[in-house]
Amino acid sequence: MLVVMHHTATDDDVRAVIETIEGMGYEARPIPGKQRTAVGLIGNDGKVDSGRLESLAGVLQVIHVSQPYKQVSREWKSEPTVIELANGTRIGDREVVLMAGPCSVESEAQILDIAHRLKAAGATVLRGGAFKPRTSPYAFQGLGVEGLKLLAKAREETGLAIVTEALETETLDVVAEYADIIQIGARNMQNFPLLRRAGKTGKPVLIKRGLAATIKELLLSAEYVLAEGNPNVILCERGVRGFDDQTRNLLDLTAIPVVQSLSHLPIIADPSHGTGVRSKVIPMARAAVAAGADGLIVEVHPNPDRALSDGAQSLWPDQFEEMVHQIGAIADAIGRAAAAPLVTR
Amino acid sequence: MLVVMHHTATDDDVRAVIETIEGMGYEARPIPGKQRTAVGLIGNDGKVDSGRLESLAGVLQVIHVSQPYKQVSREWKSEPTVIELANGTRIGDREVVLMAGPCSVESEAQILDIAHRLKAAGATVLRGGAFKPRTSPYAFQGLGVEGLKLLAKAREETGLAIVTEALETETLDVVAEYADIIQIGARNMQNFPLLRRAGKTGKPVLIKRGLAATIKELLLSAEYVLAEGNPNVILCERGVRGFDDQTRNLLDLTAIPVVQSLSHLPIIADPSHGTGVRSKVIPMARAAVAAGADGLIVEVHPNPDRALSDGAQSLWPDQFEEMVHQIGAIADAIGRAAAAPLVTR
Amino acid sequence: MLVVMHHTATDDDVRAVIETIEGMGYEARPIPGKQRTAVGLIGNDGKVDSGRLESLAGVLQVIHVSQPYKQVSREWKSEPTVIELANGTRIGDREVVLMAGPCSVESEAQILDIAHRLKAAGATVLRGGAFKPRTSPYAFQGLGVEGLKLLAKAREETGLAIVTEALETETLDVVAEYADIIQIGARNMQNFPLLRRAGKTGKPVLIKRGLAATIKELLLSAEYVLAEGNPNVILCERGVRGFDDQTRNLLDLTAIPVVQSLSHLPIIADPSHGTGVRSKVIPMARAAVAAGADGLIVEVHPNPDRALSDGAQSLWPDQFEEMVHQIGAIADAIGRAAAAPLVTR
Amino acid sequence: MLVVMHHTATDDDVRAVIETIEGMGYEARPIPGKQRTAVGLIGNDGKVDSGRLESLAGVLQVIHVSQPYKQVSREWKSEPTVIELANGTRIGDREVVLMAGPCSVESEAQILDIAHRLKAAGATVLRGGAFKPRTSPYAFQGLGVEGLKLLAKAREETGLAIVTEALETETLDVVAEYADIIQIGARNMQNFPLLRRAGKTGKPVLIKRGLAATIKELLLSAEYVLAEGNPNVILCERGVRGFDDQTRNLLDLTAIPVVQSLSHLPIIADPSHGTGVRSKVIPMARAAVAAGADGLIVEVHPNPDRALSDGAQSLWPDQFEEMVHQIGAIADAIGRAAAAPLVTR
Repeated sequence: MLVVMHHTATDDDVRAVIETIEGMGYEARPIPGKQRTAVGLIGNDGKVDSGRLESLAGVLQVIHVSQPYKQVSREWKSEPTVIELANGTRIGDREVVLMAGPCSVESEAQILDIAHRLKAAGATVLRGGAFKPRTSPYAFQGLGVEGLKLLAKAREETGLAIVTEALETETLDVVAEYADIIQIGARNMQNFPLLRRAGKTGKPVLIKRGLAATIKELLLSAEYVLAEGNPNVILCERGVRGFDDQTRNLLDLTAIPVVQSLSHLPIIADPSHGTGVRSKVIPMARAAVAAGADGLIVEVHPNPDRALSDGAQSLWPDQFEEMVHQIGAIADAIGRAAAAPLVTR
Repeated sequence: MLVVMHHTATDDDVRAVIETIEGMGYEARPIPGKQRTAVGLIGNDGKVDSGRLESLAGVLQVIHVSQPYKQVSREWKSEPTVIELANGTRIGDREVVLMAGPCSVESEAQILDIAHRLKAAGATVLRGGAFKPRTSPYAFQGLGVEGLKLLAKAREETGLAIVTEALETETLDVVAEYADIIQIGARNMQNFPLLRRAGKTGKPVLIKRGLAATIKELLLSAEYVLAEGNPNVILCERGVRGFDDQTRNLLDLTAIPVVQSLSHLPIIADPSHGTGVRSKVIPMARAAVAAGADGLIVEVHPNPDRALSDGAQSLWPDQFEEMVHQIGAIADAIGRAAAAPLVTR
Repeated sequence: MLVVMHHTATDDDVRAVIETIEGMGYEARPIPGKQRTAVGLIGNDGKVDSGRLESLAGVLQVIHVSQPYKQVSREWKSEPTVIELANGTRIGDREVVLMAGPCSVESEAQILDIAHRLKAAGATVLRGGAFKPRTSPYAFQGLGVEGLKLLAKAREETGLAIVTEALETETLDVVAEYADIIQIGARNMQNFPLLRRAGKTGKPVLIKRGLAATIKELLLSAEYVLAEGNPNVILCERGVRGFDDQTRNLLDLTAIPVVQSLSHLPIIADPSHGTGVRSKVIPMARAAVAAGADGLIVEVHPNPDRALSDGAQSLWPDQFEEMVHQIGAIADAIGRAAAAPLVTR
Repeated sequence: MLVVMHHTATDDDVRAVIETIEGMGYEARPIPGKQRTAVGLIGNDGKVDSGRLESLAGVLQVIHVSQPYKQVSREWKSEPTVIELANGTRIGDREVVLMAGPCSVESEAQILDIAHRLKAAGATVLRGGAFKPRTSPYAFQGLGVEGLKLLAKAREETGLAIVTEALETETLDVVAEYADIIQIGARNMQNFPLLRRAGKTGKPVLIKRGLAATIKELLLSAEYVLAEGNPNVILCERGVRGFDDQTRNLLDLTAIPVVQSLSHLPIIADPSHGTGVRSKVIPMARAAVAAGADGLIVEVHPNPDRALSDGAQSLWPDQFEEMVHQIGAIADAIGRAAAAPLVTR
């Protein structure tokens, strides 16, 4: 940590900074410059509250050199984390994993129908919302536990693993009971009690980046899960808030290589929420894989025109098949591969 | 709702749109234009899922004319909502209400000391975090229930009302037991189960605008509380995510008159989180009142240099006194007034 | 255009809107709704100033249905525009075009050296700044006309076409004399006199998207060039202003398919400025091609450590070769191809 | 400048950084830390290209400690700059200056009519566009030199000073001939040739902040004018690009105290473009003055319903009078005053 002094700071100001640092139990190292003096804080263990320093007389700014996250950092663990699910799907390895399914579980017929088609097309993980976070209190809120049971039935019939969202600590444990991967949605990325509870389950946790979250904040949310002793975190880029209403969100694909340089955790992309427009999903799915994503999570509905939510951004099943085909070719082009389809049992 | 057709749309496309609308139980009204046709949907009760229409052949876009919120709307209730607390503070009325206190409750001495000084300076509501949402899992997380008890003690001694944050459904009820106003923080603005639970208590709820939330989304979050039969909602502008690191957030003061034209709910501003820089708090507090805010919520600490959190944006007590003085003059200038200080008991 | 009335609007308010529309020479069509009335304006020729309508009593909002751009629209011309340069490079066709070179032309040795290497690697267009827009007045501002002459010499030696930026109307004509493509930089995207002057030359114009420009605004800037009778416009996504300092800008790759659905003009991507970080350039170049970009413009320097500008985001020549290899594989995977290298003369 | 090394950086990496710094002619000072080493660059004269350092092996990041601007900085000149116009208006002094007028000069009757009313209401500077930057090539582009002559006539009749926009270097000199203050619009904030040409005239220059410009970039644009020996620069906050379509832009009033702490230059606010909605102009004008703005620039039209541009955000003359009244009260409340009206000659 570096405390930069104002160029008019007096020797007394500098001395007060040094004494404050030493009083906090760290070493202070003055660095005189041509235009101003700075004071280095040596021995920072990540617990320094810079507020105390920023408010001292003559201080211009406090610059953080170390990162506040630890366990998620690639400096902490250089080899990539690979998460293996019960059905053999490996996330974070060479293969690009395909997660797909409807926005919401709507009925047994709907979820079983789409699960079979997705499996045939090459997906290995089934997505589907049972508890739905909806901007309006008057919109369809999901089938709840009944939805979880239908997902489990789809898993039983197809072998697909299940990823589904938990909305609150009170129902997280029941979600964990049914899901192979617990999803923390973008709106809850900084719902810290929820992250802790998800961490405690030990199950894989998929954290979606919040609409206004920096990558550092995303990593710190993952750190909450790891701090509970659960190393199985998958990150997901799904678009940040943009200023152009041509798309629902602004898909920040550069986040993929940025996360990969800062962290050992796998990162996937959600081109459905990232664009919000069906005709843009396949191009951006291709782009995400080309950028190095470890997987995709995509909304597919047996009949998007009839979907109870997110119909406008859901692919038709045959579009998904076409997408898988294109994704496979791109994965090959960059030395990876689409994950092998599940063997029919 | 207006369905705008592509200029190459065929008569069959238009007919399919009409039939879909009628199949959903609404009336369809074609509006031929010079360049293209549009189809109006008449009778929209706020439950139409536009996704189904957007995905039909030949549809260019679907334009929403009605708002998705109801009870929070000024169209629904034209007179302003005024919320009266047990100590006589009225929020949403002519007087500008001052809420102030430390970021976190740290100790009995700290909270009692500051409470007395704030009361003397003219605040009528005491803020202080007992459950703290922190970006890093390694930062100070608040004193929990012990903090709530200290706040209650400060209320007993001073008569100040208490506003404090609830972080999760599991602890919301205990927060509601101690607080006069339950705060829903910016990170939880779309934590819908938490909003519902807060709504159920019937207590006043202060909802802070999320970093990437539109005003419409803020109003829809308030709608969650009203939908539980609880009309006592206070909105709070506390800055959105900006691109300039000169300030922590970008305080969007225009949100104040915008909310006032759309909704009957009171709106206050938080210039402490809105700027994140102590020297900018007073100018922006003045600006918020000049823009028409119904109140302010400001961080004040007996010794910001020693604060366990948010020290760099907390005012010193004598700065708060100066702020109250300036605020009073501005409130007078626009035909309002600072709320009268509590009578010492 | 649709004028939506407030739900309390009186019949007189509606009548005033109708009369205003008719007074402007258009047809008015009232559309009564369940909650409110709207009035359609029929016959909009793109010249209606909605301000007059927005300010009438009882008007809630004015919704634009037609687009303000014409000639750039895919509705106006459905087949894609292909721009052919003197050296045979075709932009907007099946082949993905590679434009590359240093940020600034620094010396004859530098530009000739890099030009030969880029040609060998497969580029067909050489980029290089002669007139440089620099945020600071004290930074290197480019070699000016001398730089243009060096670019021309590089073209003569290698056959590469030249793309270089024009900064002002006064020097645009001399840029046009030397360049095969006139670049309008992001900071000048709405420098309308410059766009008009570029339009008048008839030469191909490359317009970079401004940091805060919507896609509609980008298309309207292109419309300025087409309105001068010059159809040869290439659009370029190079990142918008983001809130995360991990990258210099936020590369909005979804702009590529969005532009392609709205306009017939070719669109390329600039992953160098779009990320600002050398290690992120190749992943995002791959992603741009996977998303459907018609080409790339990339900064490459013979020795980035010695570059006078943009060193941190410039590729080394051997990195560019690697990029070309990867790009070719991705282009093949999606049914396109990298443009064929120029034949050595 | 501080070069922060990766925690795995070798001694050789650190040595290479030191040698590079010394080879650039500066002093290098290694600062070992607990987790990593940093190297200070001492003697930075503002010309160091950090790109060379960022690209060396083992370098994690380069942190800038000094600011790239000089002459605009309050560190360079601590007393505020006050700019005095021929009619006695002083900008940057205790009085809050009112600049007002129509978006565009439309006719002699229009500009003379409004000028008299604005003068009577207390404005001392008349705004009005003669050369208009319009997003669409088909929109009204202003009366050009004819408009300048009409502004001069209004000045002659009323004594109001004139502020009007210059769009390009070719016509800047004629603008300078007629105007008391040359306006550089938001779209041209980084049109560096235009800034230089404005600097050369020696006349006061009003620079509007670009939609995506950081405050540092705004100050660097001002630095271009000062670097030409012209100290008479007025800055203007007029809104940045936001994500909520309730307002046209997002008025960033915190920019006012931020600029005032970083620079000695006066700063005013434009609540008309900053909100784009007439009913929000007065509240935000009040807020800007409360935040400490040195003046306002506001659009007023004799009949906004008939305005050729920006009608929806223009005040009616009697609204302007009301605004002046409120502004005066707020200025008094914070120890300033509205500028005295011009004496009728």
